[in-house]
Amino acid sequence: MDLALCFSGGKDSALAALLADPFFDVTLVTASFGLTDAATHAREAANALGFDHETVSLDRAIAEEAVERMVDDGYPRDGIQYVHEATLEAVAKTGVDAIGDGTRRDDRAPTIPRAIAQSLEDRHDVEYIVPLAGYGRSAIDTLAAERLAIERGPSESLAKGDYEHELRTLLANEHGESAVEEIFPDHTQSVVRGRQA
Amino acid sequence: MDLALCFSGGKDSALAALLADPFFDVTLVTASFGLTDAATHAREAANALGFDHETVSLDRAIAEEAVERMVDDGYPRDGIQYVHEATLEAVAKTGVDAIGDGTRRDDRAPTIPRAIAQSLEDRHDVEYIVPLAGYGRSAIDTLAAERLAIERGPSESLAKGDYEHELRTLLANEHGESAVEEIFPDHTQSVVRGRQA
Repeated sequence: MDLALCFSGGKDSALAALLADPFFDVTLVTASFGLTDAATHAREAANALGFDHETVSLDRAIAEEAVERMVDDGYPRDGIQYVHEATLEAVAKTGVDAIGDGTRRDDRAPTIPRAIAQSLEDRHDVEYIVPLAGYGRSAIDTLAAERLAIERGPSESLAKGDYEHELRTLLANEHGESAVEEIFPDHTQSVVRGRQA
Repeated sequence: MDLALCFSGGKDSALAALLADPFFDVTLVTASFGLTDAATHAREAANALGFDHETVSLDRAIAEEAVERMVDDGYPRDGIQYVHEATLEAVAKTGVDAIGDGTRRDDRAPTIPRAIAQSLEDRHDVEYIVPLAGYGRSAIDTLAAERLAIERGPSESLAKGDYEHELRTLLANEHGESAVEEIFPDHTQSVVRGRQA
């Protein structure tokens, strides 16, 4: 079964890819608004893990809408959720057998409830696979440390490969750096450099 | 990481074991009230899949309570849920790093909400792993057909290895065969005979 797995270059989506790898023909897919070179960084991480990589374009209007929601809300959750759902829709339209992502049991956003998962599957005749849905934070940290070479740091200094990086850039352009700091306080992220030797 | 995965000899828990196998040191565990030889059948299926197998004893009072709930309710869901939670508690007490089961995204019973999962993890200092939590029914059927040699049939004629078989036996003994037919109508199940060649 072909699986197009949404990939940010971060720890969670990389571990999801490793869990799926023995059972699917996995391609890692990064959604991009074309606002930064985020997808290039994701491709490097995908290749370092030994996976094929593709980029799916998202309309810039989706990023604009997400950023306006974040500014109105004062927090990023609903904007991130909006972009994640748009990404799954875009990937599902590419005609693969299965789509997936790196969301986890303990995530608050993005999160895809069962009803939305089944709607995605029915409308696009696709399976929606979430390898980490049955894993808590501590189990994920343990497996990631065993299997992945990871670099950690604050979001703004890591060459991260996901749409969040693009959204932060758009937010900074339109509302200034202070808006980024207000909406994404103290955000440490991880970037995957490869598998553990 | 050691993982004690609850195992019935059926398709779902077998596929859960295969998904976990590359990442954990998996032992398949069958809970038994000692009412039938169900655990022996589960052991055969576990060995056919190439896994170690252990049996964990459950107090017969748990089976009695579950059967009374089923008779009162007229359906098995809450009784099964009660036994499943008791099983996870018993397996968590064996001192492994992680426990798990074959519950699926689309299951109605048993199902372990996130709050119960986190309570299990906190009280027993254990990880709770659900390999199929992010898989829908159709994806599971496809993967199981690819990876498992499966025999299907009505519950009463298959030498099934799980506590449900024991609960049906107790129900028949205490309330007659008609109670089993009322509470478990048209119940087709699967037994795993090994991996796909």
